Amino acid sequence: MGFRTLEWRDGALWLLDQRKLPASVEEVRVHSAAETARAIREMVVRGAPAIGCTAAYGVALAARDAVRSSDPERTFAAAVEELRAARPTAVNLRWALERLATKRADLLRAGASAERVADALLEEAHAVLAEDLAACRAIGKHGAQLVPDGQGILTHCNAGGLATAGYGTALGVVRAAIESGKKCVVYADETRPWLQGARLTAWELLQDGIPVTVLPDVAAASLLGSGRVGCVVVGADRIARNGDTANKVGTYPLALAAEAAGVPFFVAAPISTVDLRAANGREIPIEERGADEVTHVAGSRVAPHGVNVFNPSFDVTPARLIAAIVTDRGVARPPYEESLEALSLTGRGGGG
Amino acid sequence: MGFRTLEWRDGALWLLDQRKLPASVEEVRVHSAAETARAIREMVVRGAPAIGCTAAYGVALAARDAVRSSDPERTFAAAVEELRAARPTAVNLRWALERLATKRADLLRAGASAERVADALLEEAHAVLAEDLAACRAIGKHGAQLVPDGQGILTHCNAGGLATAGYGTALGVVRAAIESGKKCVVYADETRPWLQGARLTAWELLQDGIPVTVLPDVAAASLLGSGRVGCVVVGADRIARNGDTANKVGTYPLALAAEAAGVPFFVAAPISTVDLRAANGREIPIEERGADEVTHVAGSRVAPHGVNVFNPSFDVTPARLIAAIVTDRGVARPPYEESLEALSLTGRGGGG
Repeated sequence: MGFRTLEWRDGALWLLDQRKLPASVEEVRVHSAAETARAIREMVVRGAPAIGCTAAYGVALAARDAVRSSDPERTFAAAVEELRAARPTAVNLRWALERLATKRADLLRAGASAERVADALLEEAHAVLAEDLAACRAIGKHGAQLVPDGQGILTHCNAGGLATAGYGTALGVVRAAIESGKKCVVYADETRPWLQGARLTAWELLQDGIPVTVLPDVAAASLLGSGRVGCVVVGADRIARNGDTANKVGTYPLALAAEAAGVPFFVAAPISTVDLRAANGREIPIEERGADEVTHVAGSRVAPHGVNVFNPSFDVTPARLIAAIVTDRGVARPPYEESLEALSLTGRGGGG
Repeated sequence: MGFRTLEWRDGALWLLDQRKLPASVEEVRVHSAAETARAIREMVVRGAPAIGCTAAYGVALAARDAVRSSDPERTFAAAVEELRAARPTAVNLRWALERLATKRADLLRAGASAERVADALLEEAHAVLAEDLAACRAIGKHGAQLVPDGQGILTHCNAGGLATAGYGTALGVVRAAIESGKKCVVYADETRPWLQGARLTAWELLQDGIPVTVLPDVAAASLLGSGRVGCVVVGADRIARNGDTANKVGTYPLALAAEAAGVPFFVAAPISTVDLRAANGREIPIEERGADEVTHVAGSRVAPHGVNVFNPSFDVTPARLIAAIVTDRGVARPPYEESLEALSLTGRGGGG
């Protein structure tokens, strides 16, 4: 892949500005926890795993900010709280915050200095990034076996390199299938209102020379009925214990259309996306975003003044519509209460 | 309603330019059959009943063009053929062409002059327009009884005054329900790619002071699941003998989502939308439109160069998902083979 979604360089975090793609390829430099939270909130970076990695660097920056603070505990806690509130649905954000906060508490208990803690949290953020990339590769390897050869793969939103440390979850499955010699073409829902599919998925697949056809979200059911699609693969922002999956709004109706067409529907996500504390989808908070995303497109107002707007950012696909959940630790099949718990309790390889 | 979708004035047809709404309210003057066909093709006017009315005026203009032609038959036939090819899915277009062509043949057989024929076809076009308005009122009256009081009504695309001679089909049901004293709020799918919901449905409802909430198409399933919607009402471009209904792309997945949520799904259309020659939805031609509608929004390019596009303009909702079809002649219920045929064979009131 010819791009870096996020990268630590010259003492700061550099984020590829996903609001600007594909018209222009620009980076945003982030050098405080507050700037990190703003970048997540304003969707300079998006995608649950990429948000998790970015938040990890945000905590590392909070630890660095705390070194210079007269009240380090308060500075650090406020920064973590601002990061936590930036996007409510993706559990990877909470997971990353808790992982780095635990690391910090352990180090402080062991008598480490503020400087030593800041250095260690930066190392931990690097580890989160490296593990996410490895997880995407593993998801790809497991998922590639599920993909039928020579047929279309339909995806929604962007669960690609741009949504992760690189390689992608759903698009990692596509990349791995192609690397294994399968012939795949990708159909990308444009994904209103933010157009992650038309802007980001199309852009990153074309960077890799993978053929991609963009369609309005409303046309996905027709496409599925046409016989051109062998499977649907999407990412996830949070997966409940029973397999109910929160992902970009539009995933649930896509799963209904796949069911009606008899096309298998797969979710691809790192095990850190599974939230064993949520029994089912009703316990997952759904973020609503501003009206402007709907009333304006590409800077132009399309809806008249005076309309109300309903703009939830995610929806929940019930587990019964999901044929398999592909994680870095293997493929979970129904009943998910059992399979997801078993994979979650598997020991991690590497430094987790 | 404070606007005219189409109006014959000063020897020409004036069309409200629906490409420009809601940003600006402009009319396009059309004074030949070829200009009428172009206006339909380029969606200055859209919506199956409005296309039917416009096509009727197009045939009247063709008859006027033929008066001055050295080969009137050829001029007329070519003009009708261009009108027929302008949009393939809406059956109302074919219906209007056949109605006026039959009228012309009858007059010529009776020895009428070309001038007399042209005058008579213009009168016939006026009749088509007046009947469409009356049909919308009748649809409203029948449909208003189906609408639950005090709940939301979800609609897709624009099946309003802008899609008809006035008053609307699906929105005619809304208007009549409100006139009958029911409390209704409307939820309007924005309807990518052309944004008929965000641009047109929102605009015309606000003109009448009816509260409207716009949502991305992808959010409709979430809305239906929230309990805020009492029924879905959509228009139709062609209804097959068995009740399968072609309508704006996105209608079929909306019907799937309504079924999953247990919300009744109604179709509202004049009886001229029923095509008894089509046994089922597989016999309805589905128009595909250009890539630009998807790669560009409001004049700005959103998808990268090099992507393919899938852009069908309509889809087919199977009859099993439709609780009732509301026509100007009454409400058809399953089995539609029987109920639609019975309504189609009912004698017309008025001058048809």
